[in-house]
Amino acid sequence: MHEIPMREFERRLDGLHRVMRERGLDAVYLVNPINMAYFVGLHYLQTERPAAIVIHKNGEVYFFGPLLERDHVISQTQLISKTYIYRDYPGETHPMRLFAEWFRELHLDNAVVGYDSTPGYVSHWGYRGPNLTELLPNTKFVNVADDIYSMRIIKSEVEIELLRESAKWANLAHSLLQDYTAPGLYDYEISLRASLDASIMMKKALGPNYKPLRSEYPAYAGFRGQVGEHGAYPHSISTERPIRAGDVLVTGTTADVSGYMAELERNLFVGRPTNDVIKYHEIALKLQETALNTLRPGIKASEVDKAVIKAARELGVYDYLLHHSGHGLGLEAHEAPFLDVGDDTVLRPGMVITVEPGIYVPRLGGFRHSDTVVIRDDGIEIITYYPRDAESLIVEV
Amino acid sequence: MHEIPMREFERRLDGLHRVMRERGLDAVYLVNPINMAYFVGLHYLQTERPAAIVIHKNGEVYFFGPLLERDHVISQTQLISKTYIYRDYPGETHPMRLFAEWFRELHLDNAVVGYDSTPGYVSHWGYRGPNLTELLPNTKFVNVADDIYSMRIIKSEVEIELLRESAKWANLAHSLLQDYTAPGLYDYEISLRASLDASIMMKKALGPNYKPLRSEYPAYAGFRGQVGEHGAYPHSISTERPIRAGDVLVTGTTADVSGYMAELERNLFVGRPTNDVIKYHEIALKLQETALNTLRPGIKASEVDKAVIKAARELGVYDYLLHHSGHGLGLEAHEAPFLDVGDDTVLRPGMVITVEPGIYVPRLGGFRHSDTVVIRDDGIEIITYYPRDAESLIVEV
Repeated sequence: MHEIPMREFERRLDGLHRVMRERGLDAVYLVNPINMAYFVGLHYLQTERPAAIVIHKNGEVYFFGPLLERDHVISQTQLISKTYIYRDYPGETHPMRLFAEWFRELHLDNAVVGYDSTPGYVSHWGYRGPNLTELLPNTKFVNVADDIYSMRIIKSEVEIELLRESAKWANLAHSLLQDYTAPGLYDYEISLRASLDASIMMKKALGPNYKPLRSEYPAYAGFRGQVGEHGAYPHSISTERPIRAGDVLVTGTTADVSGYMAELERNLFVGRPTNDVIKYHEIALKLQETALNTLRPGIKASEVDKAVIKAARELGVYDYLLHHSGHGLGLEAHEAPFLDVGDDTVLRPGMVITVEPGIYVPRLGGFRHSDTVVIRDDGIEIITYYPRDAESLIVEV
Repeated sequence: MHEIPMREFERRLDGLHRVMRERGLDAVYLVNPINMAYFVGLHYLQTERPAAIVIHKNGEVYFFGPLLERDHVISQTQLISKTYIYRDYPGETHPMRLFAEWFRELHLDNAVVGYDSTPGYVSHWGYRGPNLTELLPNTKFVNVADDIYSMRIIKSEVEIELLRESAKWANLAHSLLQDYTAPGLYDYEISLRASLDASIMMKKALGPNYKPLRSEYPAYAGFRGQVGEHGAYPHSISTERPIRAGDVLVTGTTADVSGYMAELERNLFVGRPTNDVIKYHEIALKLQETALNTLRPGIKASEVDKAVIKAARELGVYDYLLHHSGHGLGLEAHEAPFLDVGDDTVLRPGMVITVEPGIYVPRLGGFRHSDTVVIRDDGIEIITYYPRDAESLIVEV
């Protein structure tokens, strides 16, 4: 039910083969785990051990990676024709030298090969090594990151349905987060309880075949340290103090449906909010409405951010507007396009974007709601639906 | 009490200035968030928005980054002399072009600058952009990743004490994980409950100034999908089925003490283990003992893995040995050195390494214990201490 059908992967791979033909590529070399998930349904933990898939123009897909992923990879997807396995990193022969040997075995040592992030491996958890460009001097490596982004940026109806399902469970997680919020508790106590109960209920609802693919547990809810004055840091991580009456909180929730995760964020008010808090909350709502009212197919992503900036200036809060108005999402938490003055991507049906202008008032806190929105032929579809009005977001104390 | 004293950062920065003098560098450009934490105590969420610190040979430290981190950065560390801030990514002017301008402002446009992972920014969450090598043709960029690893690989007594403290709370988290394990539950139910209760107790014990720096919550315990037959994948992520009597489980626990996290992993047996399970458990114990008995200052990291491989061959389980015998750790979950046949790093006092050879039996599960070990002048100190014998690891059903 919430699995990605084979025809969806075939469509994605067809798109990549079209790119290969257009750009004269013999193969594509992917090391970004999200791209591996996108094209062949592979999910694994990225470590210092290099792993890649090579998609050959002849239609075959090869996995290059460590022994500890061999059986795990085969268990997840039918789309891998053959696995090329090394024992471990760094190994007696460096894995990248083996990758080069396998390129030769696949007759790709005198070829044109696209890559998604590096013709080697990323510097992750102590990884160090040469690039394939040094080891395969006769292979021409071509950056195809933009081509892959252009494919991933438009979501299919299958993907949108998974995000809509994710939004439902994010809504449950958020309801529990609000129910469990109380003064005297630390933010993570509430987060872990809400994540636990939402995860149990989501699993019970979706049944025996469901499992999260990118997360350890099905549904997530939390505050990430955005408590009272700490919420004035848009990316607070944690705080040393418990929640108190009077705090403005900023939430974040999501749920993993075949690796797709919608984004739902709200403010919560611990006790009746002061007039000052209500003022900023209403301004934040107006900024989000401005973005939602601007957003439609055919305009540039930048126009949305410009409209928000203009509104923020008019409302006297420009100095508190600490980031752009939203970002794409899908398999990745942040993806292109960005609702940013500098992103002139024309918005097209099938794009999925968060809408979340935020204002951050020193010593008082953060004011931000984030909703996940699909660009449609005739406008927009907002797939997150938790209430936004102050009255609904009050935690009585 | 569990904060890193200023003299520790001074020692680290002194080491980096020594590298700069030795290699003739005018500055070092760091984009790896772990290196920023290491040298100046900065913790932030890495996103598509480029962020860097520039450590100048004149002693000044500059932060380059997005507006949303400005106040957050200043709140965390006294070591930043000046922040250079752009609004957001991609922005009307690409942040990397602003970075280049700031380099010019700092007279580093005709200089020799070390970098830790890239003279630009990593491909993360939709980031794309030019490298500084293109934008600053007269600046020579030099990879200093190895120099920084050489510093980080030896832990100070301050760091070891933080890891020892982390091991204590990982032990609590593990105790709760075992207490809460029962057939019929999903692995994440137990994980979230144990993480929640261990986090609450850890915070109550460490007091009002404590907060986790790299994690949202203080202590973590979990199984990460390593349940029964799924445990035969060393990096299982999740499973769709509940825990059942007869399952062999593989655990993982840690706790965040000033960003330092020890690693403690065990098997748990749900109900009385069969003879087959006991056999593999005892073999896994023997392999770990082999590693621990081999480990000492002055030998090569590779020698430990070779001893484990030899023992695995003798015990008839070589085909089930799916990864090397351990890895360094500290601020990062995996760091150099690696207990791997290919890593000839000589082990020296102050190195901290996990010891965790594992055997993975198809359809039966994974058999692995991981302990965190410090290399000392006269041998080793094992800082994790949860019981390893089968009797202690049985969950009665």
